[in-house]
Amino acid sequence: MSVFVLVHGSWHDGGHWGSVVRRLEELGHTAHAPTVAGHGKDVPKDVSHDDCVSSIVDYVVQHDLTEVVLVGHSFGGTVVARVAEEIPDRLRRLVFWNAFVPRPGKSQYEDLPPHYREMFSTLAAESADGTVMLPFPIWRDAFIQDADLDLARRTYATLSSEPLRPLTDELELSRFAALEIPRSYLNGTEDTALPPGEWGWHPRMSGRLGLHRLVQMPGSHEVLFTNPRGLAEKLLESARD
Amino acid sequence: MSVFVLVHGSWHDGGHWGSVVRRLEELGHTAHAPTVAGHGKDVPKDVSHDDCVSSIVDYVVQHDLTEVVLVGHSFGGTVVARVAEEIPDRLRRLVFWNAFVPRPGKSQYEDLPPHYREMFSTLAAESADGTVMLPFPIWRDAFIQDADLDLARRTYATLSSEPLRPLTDELELSRFAALEIPRSYLNGTEDTALPPGEWGWHPRMSGRLGLHRLVQMPGSHEVLFTNPRGLAEKLLESARD
Amino acid sequence: MSVFVLVHGSWHDGGHWGSVVRRLEELGHTAHAPTVAGHGKDVPKDVSHDDCVSSIVDYVVQHDLTEVVLVGHSFGGTVVARVAEEIPDRLRRLVFWNAFVPRPGKSQYEDLPPHYREMFSTLAAESADGTVMLPFPIWRDAFIQDADLDLARRTYATLSSEPLRPLTDELELSRFAALEIPRSYLNGTEDTALPPGEWGWHPRMSGRLGLHRLVQMPGSHEVLFTNPRGLAEKLLESARD
Repeated sequence: MSVFVLVHGSWHDGGHWGSVVRRLEELGHTAHAPTVAGHGKDVPKDVSHDDCVSSIVDYVVQHDLTEVVLVGHSFGGTVVARVAEEIPDRLRRLVFWNAFVPRPGKSQYEDLPPHYREMFSTLAAESADGTVMLPFPIWRDAFIQDADLDLARRTYATLSSEPLRPLTDELELSRFAALEIPRSYLNGTEDTALPPGEWGWHPRMSGRLGLHRLVQMPGSHEVLFTNPRGLAEKLLESARD
Repeated sequence: MSVFVLVHGSWHDGGHWGSVVRRLEELGHTAHAPTVAGHGKDVPKDVSHDDCVSSIVDYVVQHDLTEVVLVGHSFGGTVVARVAEEIPDRLRRLVFWNAFVPRPGKSQYEDLPPHYREMFSTLAAESADGTVMLPFPIWRDAFIQDADLDLARRTYATLSSEPLRPLTDELELSRFAALEIPRSYLNGTEDTALPPGEWGWHPRMSGRLGLHRLVQMPGSHEVLFTNPRGLAEKLLESARD
Repeated sequence: MSVFVLVHGSWHDGGHWGSVVRRLEELGHTAHAPTVAGHGKDVPKDVSHDDCVSSIVDYVVQHDLTEVVLVGHSFGGTVVARVAEEIPDRLRRLVFWNAFVPRPGKSQYEDLPPHYREMFSTLAAESADGTVMLPFPIWRDAFIQDADLDLARRTYATLSSEPLRPLTDELELSRFAALEIPRSYLNGTEDTALPPGEWGWHPRMSGRLGLHRLVQMPGSHEVLFTNPRGLAEKLLESARD
């Protein structure tokens, strides 16, 4: 039985993993879904990428979790790679689920296609607190196209604005490449949150992992909402020894 | 409930959508499948791309259809993009199903791999009326490989020769980029009518749409014949708000 | 009903097709799974690529098989292409299942990503007999990730070391391009034995076949072990007229 720590992406918080956590626990596993610093509603948004990393490291240490399967979704991939540098001995496997795999000296921003960079920079500049809210039409058609309109709207209402700085901070990441923690990449075959092709998730991000286990499932970037039971099962396939 | 107008591709005519129309109507929708000018058997083949476009525009206007989900398959993608320029206010969404997404100033021919251009030009030159018939071995293995041989033969017998000119006409297409009609791309994961990779449908064509909804289904270029009920359901997923 | 000759890949032998052969025969077909020269346990490993080819040609001729559907898996693709040059009149169709499609004047080695070339050359140099054994972590995560650990271990124990020379021999292959035998490519959508993308199976290898039938199935490089019944059914779809 595995111990999962699930790290959400931009605009999300830990509560969004609820149905996935329940399914993993029904199947006999343990699952934690902490909220990353600066994420969720009604919290201070002035955080750095290091703050995001510390919030997860602290969670794992305070709960004294070991043999952890550490899962990162989307932006969460940059967090789990850095967490792995800090507490490698507590981790059994890394799972990147349609997640950014960061590169030394680079920010996540440099992995975004130009149209997202421009949009996010404009939205952050126009905001009161340097955050970005994803416009609904993008959520509906590029992130959660496998939901009906009602589910797309209800889930959108639970999202929170994303601080820009964790996306633009350059990560030193000098130790990640040498880590020997096994890693998996879980790819949704209809995930268009990054546009397929030159700027897509797979094989662009997965290919940065070196030897890894590829697992695929049908669905959008948000199967967390549209197919949480299927996601839980694919996380188990990604996580097993 | 949606109003569909289904625009077929090369060598096809409107009657080929029969099973898809029936399934959409069973599910409570309305579906029209007009034959594009110069297509089908025993009709004059001397048509331009503009003639093809006019035949669909006229159909929609004469039937006074509004809030239309306009679907283009294959060559039909070049038609629906142009129809959208002419009657945008009648359209609710565009669906490109393994369809060409045309570019301003270019013809569909420029989007074909060289071996198809050479073959089509040769076949048209050898024909009495400047048309091209798709050779059966290509139909069987690259277009409808998910059928058995009997279905491949029976459907081939219903195809009609394709006028070359609509494929070689350059399209001005000066207004398409500015249209704000939502658009979807439906991709068959085994569609090899265009060879996967550099010359493939997805993400080459889908990527030209900008923000769009990607939907995928298993099957060849001709699920219209091999899985019409599945196609109808994926068209609904592509079409819903 | 078809006559199959199934040609295994590196580290495998003919016995590994057991469940696939049984399923094909249950469905009324005939299936042969000879072991390629220099493959399997306790046999001399000092073989050339031509020796591999001869062992399959001899098998087909000695059994007087005709109208053969010749299937090559992985390394076996280089063998079936050469066999097709030698006995084209005995073959009805070639099926490349996540197989190398060789090029004139080149070796399979030139189609391997650099990290595999380096690893194989090092392992062969360190071995007593110029052979390479695939390390278990690669088997487990890149070849058979859709198995549980127990099946991954049990199947690994049946593998045998691979002679390097058949992989490094350059193939003249002057007659293959002109052959008119129909060909299919069967692709496992999670096959990461070659890393997806620039060095992947599909469309890199499939695209070398010219007109061919693409069939896809879910699963890893080793569905032979993880889904032999599904593989048998997809081989039938690949093989039918």
